Amino acid sequence: MADQDRAAPSPSDTLAIVAGGGSLPFAVADAVLARGRRVAVLALRGFADPARVGGYVHEWGRVAQLGRFRRFARDYGCRDIVFIGTVMRPSLSQVRLDFGALMALPHIIASLRGGDDHLLTTVGRVFEHYGFRVLGAHQVAPEILVPAGALGRHRPAAQDDADIARALTLLHAMGPSDVGQAAVVAGGHVIAVEAAEGTDQMLARVADLRRSGRVPAGRGVLVKAPKPGQDQRFDLPAIGPETVDGVVRAGLAGVAVVAGQTIIAEPQLVVQKADTANVFVAGLQMPPTA
Amino acid sequence: MADQDRAAPSPSDTLAIVAGGGSLPFAVADAVLARGRRVAVLALRGFADPARVGGYVHEWGRVAQLGRFRRFARDYGCRDIVFIGTVMRPSLSQVRLDFGALMALPHIIASLRGGDDHLLTTVGRVFEHYGFRVLGAHQVAPEILVPAGALGRHRPAAQDDADIARALTLLHAMGPSDVGQAAVVAGGHVIAVEAAEGTDQMLARVADLRRSGRVPAGRGVLVKAPKPGQDQRFDLPAIGPETVDGVVRAGLAGVAVVAGQTIIAEPQLVVQKADTANVFVAGLQMPPTA
Repeated sequence: MADQDRAAPSPSDTLAIVAGGGSLPFAVADAVLARGRRVAVLALRGFADPARVGGYVHEWGRVAQLGRFRRFARDYGCRDIVFIGTVMRPSLSQVRLDFGALMALPHIIASLRGGDDHLLTTVGRVFEHYGFRVLGAHQVAPEILVPAGALGRHRPAAQDDADIARALTLLHAMGPSDVGQAAVVAGGHVIAVEAAEGTDQMLARVADLRRSGRVPAGRGVLVKAPKPGQDQRFDLPAIGPETVDGVVRAGLAGVAVVAGQTIIAEPQLVVQKADTANVFVAGLQMPPTA
Repeated sequence: MADQDRAAPSPSDTLAIVAGGGSLPFAVADAVLARGRRVAVLALRGFADPARVGGYVHEWGRVAQLGRFRRFARDYGCRDIVFIGTVMRPSLSQVRLDFGALMALPHIIASLRGGDDHLLTTVGRVFEHYGFRVLGAHQVAPEILVPAGALGRHRPAAQDDADIARALTLLHAMGPSDVGQAAVVAGGHVIAVEAAEGTDQMLARVADLRRSGRVPAGRGVLVKAPKPGQDQRFDLPAIGPETVDGVVRAGLAGVAVVAGQTIIAEPQLVVQKADTANVFVAGLQMPPTA
């Protein structure tokens, strides 16, 4: 099967969405439904938002229950899967493997020696071994990607462009260590680097630092970029209304992301919040990271 | 004047210590006094600890008061200066330049376009222009540097060595961006990267992440390393008793630093705390970063 065939969605069957936390799973589901394709959500217990899952055809499952997923996919007639939403790395004691997952365990253990990319790529391979097709959210609903250019009324100033360039250089350098999709740079100084805490917590930290006078004068930017070499079917950087809220609280001038390689949840609300608070949301045109 | 001459202390005159926050200025002062050299402390208001400054010949001054410093140095007969202790980057409104600093302002403004390294190197050049000799704490008191090997009873296990190597690779990659002397890695995963918040706050974050189950199983290490190309007279990485406290609260196996390029405050207390809590404190033998 050619790679191109594998990437093209086959809208005749129902799309399985394995949903973690946050609003992205529902943004994807809505976009796919709007395209006329059915979706069935396998909501991950402890992560997916119960209040919102109710609005979709769904069942509940747990992380690492491959056998559970296979029954779900058979019941709903799914061949294509999208994994989307936040899932914190579970501690081993929380994971309850089912028989299907036990069978795949050797692959998974081998992959745990590397970073997240390796783990997720292995998960993808295991599902493909069972005949499923793992797609990225951007493949089933390209309209949820950030386009190039300024999304709202505001655009980066020259000083912001310099901070953006500095952040991109840093994120690129960190890529091989499988860390950091985000950093905050202000006035040429790197203020914060994201690792396990996530973007929202990093922005809260910057807000604290600014209150205590530890962020230099100048506006500053949040930059998010995919890791070089990352499997884009998993874990593309994402922004949403809460990102803009965090940027505003941190006193930053705006947020810049890589156009076409970043998911945006609730884009209308993002633009509305950004325009109201006088911050920019910019999609940077960049060569794809292979 | 040859570089070697410049580095060798001249113990006949009094050493000026421009003291910021934390216990390092006093560790340096004690070590220099024990060597039989007089010290005079210019304590930076808002940063240096008033309770401890009283134990030394001292006066109070402010950041960026070059004229003030020149009078101080003349009064106490100082030619050599050590800058030591934490000084948060002041906001411009807090800085009250005196006449001496105003004269040097063009140099300083030019340097503000770069990262901290540039700023500090410029400060050094300005002082040297006025005939002073800016020394690193490690030059006047080599005994305050972390030696090679394990400092207490515990040493890194094989899994810790792997985490240490991963952290060093990351810190090295980040060096050109003038950020990050510290990172936490656990089980091969980068958990936290330090930027403007400082090591203690980063460790507190790791403790929070561990409580919420977001740090994978495994012990994990704190690694601190000087930035490549950093002017080692300023801002060498440092550890002290509070670092060990933070490591313990974060549930880490220990802390590794670069031997001979890291300052240690209160080494006896560091070892005692580390031994009691079963964590390691290790000095890594590494080629010098030029």
